[in-house]
Amino acid sequence: MALGILIGMSGCSIKQNKEKSAQEEPLNIILMIGDGMGVPQVSTAYYFGEGIPNFSRFKHIGFHKTSDKSHRITDSAAGATAFSIGEKTYKRAIGVSVDTIPQETILEHLQKQGYQTGLISLTTVTHATPASFYAHVKNRDLHEDIAAQLATAKVDFIAGGGRNYFRNRTDGKNIFTDFIQQGYHLDTLQLSEPVLDQPNAYILADEGIPSKIDGRGDFLSKATSKALNYFNQNDKPFFMMVEGSYIDWGGHAEDAEMMISEVLDFDKTLGVVLDFVEEHPNTLLVVTADHETGGVSIGKYYDVDESTGDKKEVPEKVAVYFNTDQHSGELIPVFAKGKGAENFQGIYENNEIYHKMRIALNPKPVENE
Amino acid sequence: MALGILIGMSGCSIKQNKEKSAQEEPLNIILMIGDGMGVPQVSTAYYFGEGIPNFSRFKHIGFHKTSDKSHRITDSAAGATAFSIGEKTYKRAIGVSVDTIPQETILEHLQKQGYQTGLISLTTVTHATPASFYAHVKNRDLHEDIAAQLATAKVDFIAGGGRNYFRNRTDGKNIFTDFIQQGYHLDTLQLSEPVLDQPNAYILADEGIPSKIDGRGDFLSKATSKALNYFNQNDKPFFMMVEGSYIDWGGHAEDAEMMISEVLDFDKTLGVVLDFVEEHPNTLLVVTADHETGGVSIGKYYDVDESTGDKKEVPEKVAVYFNTDQHSGELIPVFAKGKGAENFQGIYENNEIYHKMRIALNPKPVENE
Repeated sequence: MALGILIGMSGCSIKQNKEKSAQEEPLNIILMIGDGMGVPQVSTAYYFGEGIPNFSRFKHIGFHKTSDKSHRITDSAAGATAFSIGEKTYKRAIGVSVDTIPQETILEHLQKQGYQTGLISLTTVTHATPASFYAHVKNRDLHEDIAAQLATAKVDFIAGGGRNYFRNRTDGKNIFTDFIQQGYHLDTLQLSEPVLDQPNAYILADEGIPSKIDGRGDFLSKATSKALNYFNQNDKPFFMMVEGSYIDWGGHAEDAEMMISEVLDFDKTLGVVLDFVEEHPNTLLVVTADHETGGVSIGKYYDVDESTGDKKEVPEKVAVYFNTDQHSGELIPVFAKGKGAENFQGIYENNEIYHKMRIALNPKPVENE
Repeated sequence: MALGILIGMSGCSIKQNKEKSAQEEPLNIILMIGDGMGVPQVSTAYYFGEGIPNFSRFKHIGFHKTSDKSHRITDSAAGATAFSIGEKTYKRAIGVSVDTIPQETILEHLQKQGYQTGLISLTTVTHATPASFYAHVKNRDLHEDIAAQLATAKVDFIAGGGRNYFRNRTDGKNIFTDFIQQGYHLDTLQLSEPVLDQPNAYILADEGIPSKIDGRGDFLSKATSKALNYFNQNDKPFFMMVEGSYIDWGGHAEDAEMMISEVLDFDKTLGVVLDFVEEHPNTLLVVTADHETGGVSIGKYYDVDESTGDKKEVPEKVAVYFNTDQHSGELIPVFAKGKGAENFQGIYENNEIYHKMRIALNPKPVENE
C-alpha cells in the first residue's frame, strides 16, 4: 500500500516537472515572407546561387492556397492579413476582416502573452505586408494612418524604410516624436546597435530601402541578426516577421536580375535564421510567400544568330521568363523548421498559417503521457 | 538464473516474430508520374476541378531538382531514367547511364525479389517514361527496339498505346506473337478483365491512347484500378508505374483545356490509388513529375473591350498562361503517402527518388527496439 502511494506521487511529480518545463520555454515564432516568392523564385536559388541554398535545410514542406475573398489572384495586403488574423479578407485590406472590422493580429495576441515582437521589411514599414501585423485600415494606401498606428503598436524591433510617412506628412505631424515619447531608440540613418532595455526602430529611407542591385548591401541579414540577438538577451519569447519585399518588385518589373538577387539575399538571411533555430530548439520558423509574382519560369537558354534569327539552345544555361508583370495564383510553398514544423505539411488555405502557428503555441497534450 | 534465461528467450521470440511479420508483408510501391506536372499544373486542380483535389490527401511533400547530365532543362527520358536507375544521365537516354551502359532498373531489381510489376501509360508504352523502367537503349526514338525489349521484360500488367511498334514495324516482325509465346493475355482492342494467373498486356491504340478531350474516357483510372485488383489477388508484392502522359502534351501544345483535363484525370486516378494505399498500409505511393512543361502560370482573367482594346480584370476568374511550348526547370513537387513517405520530404536531386524507394524497401532497423 505504501509502495503504491509512493509510485503514484512519483508519477505526479514527473508530470509537474514537464508542465513547468513547458511554461519556462514558450515558443519563439519567426515568420519569413518572401513577397512574390513562388516555387519558380525559390528554384532560381538552385540555378543562380553559389553553393547549396538554405532552402535545402528544410524537411517539412507544404503548400497554401492564396485566393482572397474578393479576388482569386490576391494582393499582398489580403495575403499578409490572412496570415496575421487567420481570416481571408478582401484585396487591399490591412488587419481587417471582410466587413472592414479590425481583428486582433497574431503579433497583438502574443504581445498580450508577454512576447517581444519584431518587424523587418525592405520596403516602407507601412507597406502592406508588415502593416498587416500591427495596423487596421480599410485600404493599404493609407500609409500615414498606418504610420500613426505603428507609433502606438509597441513593436520592440522595427527595421525598414518609410521616413516620409512619419515626418513628411500631409497633416504636418512628425510621428517620430511619438516614437521618442514611447521610449524608442530611433535611428533614421543607420542600423546602429540596438539598445537592449528599450524598443528599437530603424527607419532608414524616405521610401523603401534600396534593392540589392541598387546597393543596399546586407541590410536584411544584418537587421535580422541584430533582432535575434536583441530578443535573445532576455528570457521573454518573441514573435518576428521578416519580409524579403523585393522578390515581388523584381517580378512586377519583369527584371530577372533584380528578382534573383533578392531571392539570394532572402536565402542568405534564411541561413542566419536557420542557424538560430538550430541553436534554439524552442523556436518555430515558417517561410512562405503571399503569392507568386511574374508568372515566372526557368527555361531553355537560346543563342540567337543575329543575321538569320535562328535560335540555338545552350544546354548548360537557363533563362528566366515572365508570363506577366502581375501576381499569379499558383500554390505557394511553405517551409517550416523547429518546434511544431510538422503541422505545416500538406495543402491548405493561406489563413491556416495563422491557425497552425496558434496550434504550435498551444499544442494538444499528448495522451497517455 | 533460470528467470534470466526465460526473459532472454522471450525477447528473442518477439524479435523473430517481428522479422517474420516484416517478411510476410514486403512493401508495395506505386510511382505515379504526371509528365510535365509542375506546381502550376497541380494548382489548376484547385481552380478548375470540382471538389477538393486528391492532392490534398498528402501530408509528406518534397521537391526534386530535374537537371540532367547533358542539359539543365531535362527531357522525359533522362527524367524517368533518373527515377528508374538512380543515376542522372543524358537527354534522350533510356535505362542507360551517361556512358550509354545499361543499368538495372528498380522494376528489374524488384522482379528479382519476386515482385509483380506493372506499367500504365496513356502514350505508346514504348515512350520515354514507361520505357525507362524496362528498356535500355541509347536514344528514346528507337521505339521498335524498345518494343522488342518489352516482349521479354516479363512485366505482369501493361496498359497503354503503341500497336504500330509491335506489329507494323520496319523489320516486318510481329512482336505481339512474342507476347503470346511469353504466355500473355494480350488485348489490342479493349481493357478486358485481366486473367489472374497470366501476365496481361493491353495495347489499345496504334500510337497514343486519345487525350481526355478527344474522348478516351476513364482509361487511366480504370486500368489502374484493374491493375491494383490484379496485383492484390495473390500474396506477392508489386511495383507499378502509372503515367499521366498528356499533361506534358497539353503544355507542349500550349492548350490549357487539354492540360487541365489531363491534370483532373490524373487527380481522379490518384483518388483510386490513395484509396488503395489507405486500405493497404504496406504500400508506398510516390507522385511526382519528370519536369514542368509550358512554363505555366495561373493569372488574372481579363475581359477585353473589342472596340477600345481596354482590358478589365474579372476578379472571380483566372486564366492559364504559357511562357513556352518547351520544358522548364522549376523544382518539381513530390507527394508521398504510406510506408516510408516521410523520406520524401525536403529538396533533393531527381535520382534520389530511386534511392529513397530503395531505402523504403529496406529501412534501417530502429535502434533500441
